[in-house]
Amino acid sequence: MASFAIGVDLGGTNLRISAVDADGNLLEKLETGAQVSRGRDFVIQEMTEAIKSVSLRLRGKGDLAGVGIGVPGIIDQDTGMVRKSPNLPDWRDYPVKEEIERRLNAPVILENDANAAAVGEHWLGAARNVEDMCILTLGTGVGGGIVLHNQVWEGMTGMAGELGHITVHPDGPKCNCGNYGCVEQFASATAILRMAREAIATGNAKELSELSAGTGTFKNVEFTAKTIYNLALQGDEPSKTIFRKVGWALGIVLGDIVNAFNLQMYVLGGGVSNSWDAFAPAMFEEVRRRSMVYAATAPADVERAKGASAGVSYQPSPKSRQTIITRALLGGDGGLFGAARLPFLRARTITSQA
Amino acid sequence: MASFAIGVDLGGTNLRISAVDADGNLLEKLETGAQVSRGRDFVIQEMTEAIKSVSLRLRGKGDLAGVGIGVPGIIDQDTGMVRKSPNLPDWRDYPVKEEIERRLNAPVILENDANAAAVGEHWLGAARNVEDMCILTLGTGVGGGIVLHNQVWEGMTGMAGELGHITVHPDGPKCNCGNYGCVEQFASATAILRMAREAIATGNAKELSELSAGTGTFKNVEFTAKTIYNLALQGDEPSKTIFRKVGWALGIVLGDIVNAFNLQMYVLGGGVSNSWDAFAPAMFEEVRRRSMVYAATAPADVERAKGASAGVSYQPSPKSRQTIITRALLGGDGGLFGAARLPFLRARTITSQA
Repeated sequence: MASFAIGVDLGGTNLRISAVDADGNLLEKLETGAQVSRGRDFVIQEMTEAIKSVSLRLRGKGDLAGVGIGVPGIIDQDTGMVRKSPNLPDWRDYPVKEEIERRLNAPVILENDANAAAVGEHWLGAARNVEDMCILTLGTGVGGGIVLHNQVWEGMTGMAGELGHITVHPDGPKCNCGNYGCVEQFASATAILRMAREAIATGNAKELSELSAGTGTFKNVEFTAKTIYNLALQGDEPSKTIFRKVGWALGIVLGDIVNAFNLQMYVLGGGVSNSWDAFAPAMFEEVRRRSMVYAATAPADVERAKGASAGVSYQPSPKSRQTIITRALLGGDGGLFGAARLPFLRARTITSQA
Repeated sequence: MASFAIGVDLGGTNLRISAVDADGNLLEKLETGAQVSRGRDFVIQEMTEAIKSVSLRLRGKGDLAGVGIGVPGIIDQDTGMVRKSPNLPDWRDYPVKEEIERRLNAPVILENDANAAAVGEHWLGAARNVEDMCILTLGTGVGGGIVLHNQVWEGMTGMAGELGHITVHPDGPKCNCGNYGCVEQFASATAILRMAREAIATGNAKELSELSAGTGTFKNVEFTAKTIYNLALQGDEPSKTIFRKVGWALGIVLGDIVNAFNLQMYVLGGGVSNSWDAFAPAMFEEVRRRSMVYAATAPADVERAKGASAGVSYQPSPKSRQTIITRALLGGDGGLFGAARLPFLRARTITSQA
């Protein structure tokens, strides 16, 4: 009998749940009102209730293959516990996997949310014909996920892929992770707000200052990375400078990753990736200048390069031997699809081992 | 019948050749007078002559399984050509593999020299019980090689593992690769000499100045990374500062690599790794401060940490789940053993595919 899996995205503020079949068809998607900030017990209760009701409704579609949960933090795969998660402090050292499995009577897989996004984009998104790829998720923070030979590269302790904490400038701003000058400090929504505040403090960023204060033409306009991007689109120089800095930092870290991994595709996801037009030119200039491996393998064809800038998804043949840097195709849903994919992958591994 | 393979190390100045059996026993090792600087045709002629005479002498030991050649440059595995090699300019776009195979009538495998060193250390050296590891070779330049699931990670076009060109400081000195502030610009023998010259130029480095000029107590002493290390050992502050900078840069790049790959072992090889005592304290301090993945997985045990500083090779159990940063065990011979290993690996792959 055909089956379906549930994917859960715990990222950011709300809890989102999807039901997906083995072919990647979305059967149901819901966003619960459950605010993650209300704490572990509340969220787990809401989550299990929602999953149970979805499963009931979908009974005709087959069995529940399992539940995949994307968590913004470092997961210990051996114990099924959250090892480190700045946004979910009370999830640490709590048997999340065990507890949810007990309540649902179904296999549960925890995964870092950016790893889940990598799985989603690799399964159904920009990298769907690519064996080796990675993703950088540009959100509140910057996450990373790496797929090698069609499998998530978990590393020795499941902590691999922390690409958001690669150093871009060793004397840069202090990061939550303890390091200084991580790419997260230049290319996250949080970093964009910080850079905007720095620009305002110079006294030379009138529009940003008004946006920040909600004055002038900006009454009722929120001060966010997105509205700063809108200012950049309108030609505001200080805002454009901020996104050039985003591109500069992404170009440096992509150069590092291209030099180390020499993958076929590098995908940029997360909310900030919607500002592609504002940061991509600086990013491509920087990565080409800094990575000899990129320079040797970048798409030569001008049309292709333009396509990349416009976020067009390539489906390069495995023999194309070109390095593609492009935008996520699934938008904010990559992690949700990827989380739902995990139980199917696990089942396949178990079958092939048996 | 048992067989043996030939490993060739084209690195640096001279040509070195080894004959090794499938168990890693060294049957013969020779260093030819053939200076690499005398050009491609001369070197290939000398190399094939030497390999032929070694093969003849070892006829009683079995068949020649093949020849592995470690080349300081980027290799195109599909064509068997050297794609980029600052030290071997006339090897570029020349059918090296084909030409040597024709002369020897034996399979030839080209490999980046640092990848060969990774294979050697993984086979017989510091990482011999480790599935996933990488090496940084600190020589004239800085090379890198990555082994994942016991195989060299070649990447899409065989250019992976260029860890020496990861950016440490985006505004650092210009590198031959086109980038600025690569780790090669801070942790190679060339970089140590540059930093020494910079220290001399300040007028506050008397010993280094005399060493550089060959005056005072330094008559007939060469001005090299090694003699600068000797000065550091004798307590010369400007020399110690240089090696702290080496450690700082290595700590930053190791932090990047640990965050991205989460491997079990990171090996430092090449001539500069002999200055371990002078750079390791700064390196460990920096990587612990900068990489949350390292901080979460570093050996807690003080004795282990001391062992690492002293270059003791661990043989951690696969379940130890600790991140080990240590020195190469095979010294300058890692690449020579690794190159000789390549024909055996290729044969195994072919057998298992058949």
